[in-house]
Amino acid sequence: MIFIGEKINGTRKKVAAAIKDRNSDLIRQLAVEQTEAGSAYLDINAGTAPSREPEDMVWLIGNVQAVTDLPICLDSANPRALRAGLEIVHNTPIINSLSGEKARLEGVLPLALEYGAHLIILALDDVVGIPDTSSGRMEIIKRLTGMALKGGLAEDQLYVDPLVTAISTGTENGTLTLETIRAVKKAYPAAHITSGLSNISYGMPLRGIINRTFLAMCVASGLDSVIADPNDRALLETTMAAEMLMGRDRFCMGFNKAYRAGRIGPQAK
Amino acid sequence: MIFIGEKINGTRKKVAAAIKDRNSDLIRQLAVEQTEAGSAYLDINAGTAPSREPEDMVWLIGNVQAVTDLPICLDSANPRALRAGLEIVHNTPIINSLSGEKARLEGVLPLALEYGAHLIILALDDVVGIPDTSSGRMEIIKRLTGMALKGGLAEDQLYVDPLVTAISTGTENGTLTLETIRAVKKAYPAAHITSGLSNISYGMPLRGIINRTFLAMCVASGLDSVIADPNDRALLETTMAAEMLMGRDRFCMGFNKAYRAGRIGPQAK
Repeated sequence: MIFIGEKINGTRKKVAAAIKDRNSDLIRQLAVEQTEAGSAYLDINAGTAPSREPEDMVWLIGNVQAVTDLPICLDSANPRALRAGLEIVHNTPIINSLSGEKARLEGVLPLALEYGAHLIILALDDVVGIPDTSSGRMEIIKRLTGMALKGGLAEDQLYVDPLVTAISTGTENGTLTLETIRAVKKAYPAAHITSGLSNISYGMPLRGIINRTFLAMCVASGLDSVIADPNDRALLETTMAAEMLMGRDRFCMGFNKAYRAGRIGPQAK
Repeated sequence: MIFIGEKINGTRKKVAAAIKDRNSDLIRQLAVEQTEAGSAYLDINAGTAPSREPEDMVWLIGNVQAVTDLPICLDSANPRALRAGLEIVHNTPIINSLSGEKARLEGVLPLALEYGAHLIILALDDVVGIPDTSSGRMEIIKRLTGMALKGGLAEDQLYVDPLVTAISTGTENGTLTLETIRAVKKAYPAAHITSGLSNISYGMPLRGIINRTFLAMCVASGLDSVIADPNDRALLETTMAAEMLMGRDRFCMGFNKAYRAGRIGPQAK
C-alpha cells in the first residue's frame, strides 16, 4: 500500500496558522510522525492564498525535507506554486492533481511532463463535473491518461483517482467507485489507483467503520494507494490486513512485525 | 447479507454439554439471541456422536422452533440426522453441506433433491481435498452445481462456499478465495455465496481485524452470505457497512436505524 500522508494541508486550521506564523516545529513534527507511521509520500498543500502559495509551498517543502527523505506529493492547482515546488524537491514527486478542467490541462499537465513527475489523475472535468457512471468516469480517465502517456510519462507514474462521493447521497455511490477501480485496473494494469476515501461516509454515523470497510473493498477491487492519515491506528490496521490478504505481505511478516512492535493492535496503557 | 447464525454447534463444549444434559434453556437462549441479532438462518449442528445424532438433531430443532420462526441450516454429513431434521422443520431449510466426497454425493445430495432444500456446496472432494487454485475449486463447484441443477434445484437455492484457508500458511490464500468468489458470481449469478470466514486468520494475531477486513473484501467480490456469530458486534458493524456500500441498503436506512437502536456503534455503559 502506497500511503500518501495527508496531514500537511493548509486548508486545516492548525496548519494554516503554522504557515502564517512560520511555525516550523508543527510542520516538521507532522512530517516526522507521518514518516515514522510508514508513509511513502507526504502530501503538501500550502493553502488557498494564491499570491502567497508559491513561497508558502517552498517554505513547507524546506521544512519537510529538513527532517525526512520521503518524496513529496505537491498538492496544488496553481502552476506557479507547483513549479516552485518542482524546482526544489529532492526526489521525484507526485503532482496532485490533473483533471479534465481546462485550467489544469493547461497549467498542470505541461509541468508534469516537463519535470517527469508522477501524476494523480481525477475522474472529473468542467463539462460534466464528476460523472455518475463508471463509464463516464472512465471516459475522462482514458482521455487524461492518453495525454499523459503520449507526453512521455510511464503508466506506472500515474495515480488514478476514481473519486468517491457520499453513500448518504446515493446508494450506488459505493459500487460506482468500485466499478471504476476495476475498470482502471483492467485498462491500465501498471497504473496506481489512489483516493482519499473518507468522502464515502460524509453525513453518516460511525464514519471510521464505514471508511475502513470501504478501504478493504477498494483494495480487493484494485486500489493500491490511499491519501489518508497514517497515524489513524485503526485505518492502518485495516490497511495492513488488506495488503496481507491481497498476498502482498510475504509470510505475513509485515503484519506480524507491526503487531509485535505495537504499531497495530491494542495500545499499551 | 444472509447471516447464518453459527452458535448452536455441538462441537462447542457448552453446546455439547447442553445437548447431553437436555438443557433446553441454553439452546433456546442461543436461538433467541441470534434471531434478535438479525440472522436469516440458524445453523444447527448436533455434534459428533453418529448414533445419537438423529435424535439430538430433532431435540435441538424442537427447541429452536419453539422460540423462533427462522429457517434452519441443517449442519450434518449424516443422512439419518439430515432426514430426521428435514421431516420436522417448519420452513425450507439449508442443508450444510454437499461436497465432492463420495459419502456426501450418495448421502446428502439425494436428500436435498427429495426435499427441495437449499444446499451449501463446498469446493472440495476426496480426490484432491481442497484445491489450491481457483480453477481447481471451480471444477468441483461446477460438477456439484451441475448435479444439483440437473436434479431440480434452482440456482438461487444454492449457497456456494469457496472455502477459506489460513493466510498464515500461504500468502496467496486470500486472493485464492476472492478469485473463486468472482468466478462463482460470474458462472452462477443467481447463486448465493457463503462461507465461515474466520479460518483466514488462523495462527495470526488480531484475528477480528483480519476477519472483518476479509469479510469486506469478500463482499466486494460477490459474497452475500456469511456463517458467523451475529452477536459479534464489530463483525455486524462491518457487515452492515459492507451491505450499504454495495448499494443494498436503501437510503442507508438499515445502517442508520441499527445505529440509532444501539445495535452498532459504541455500547452504552
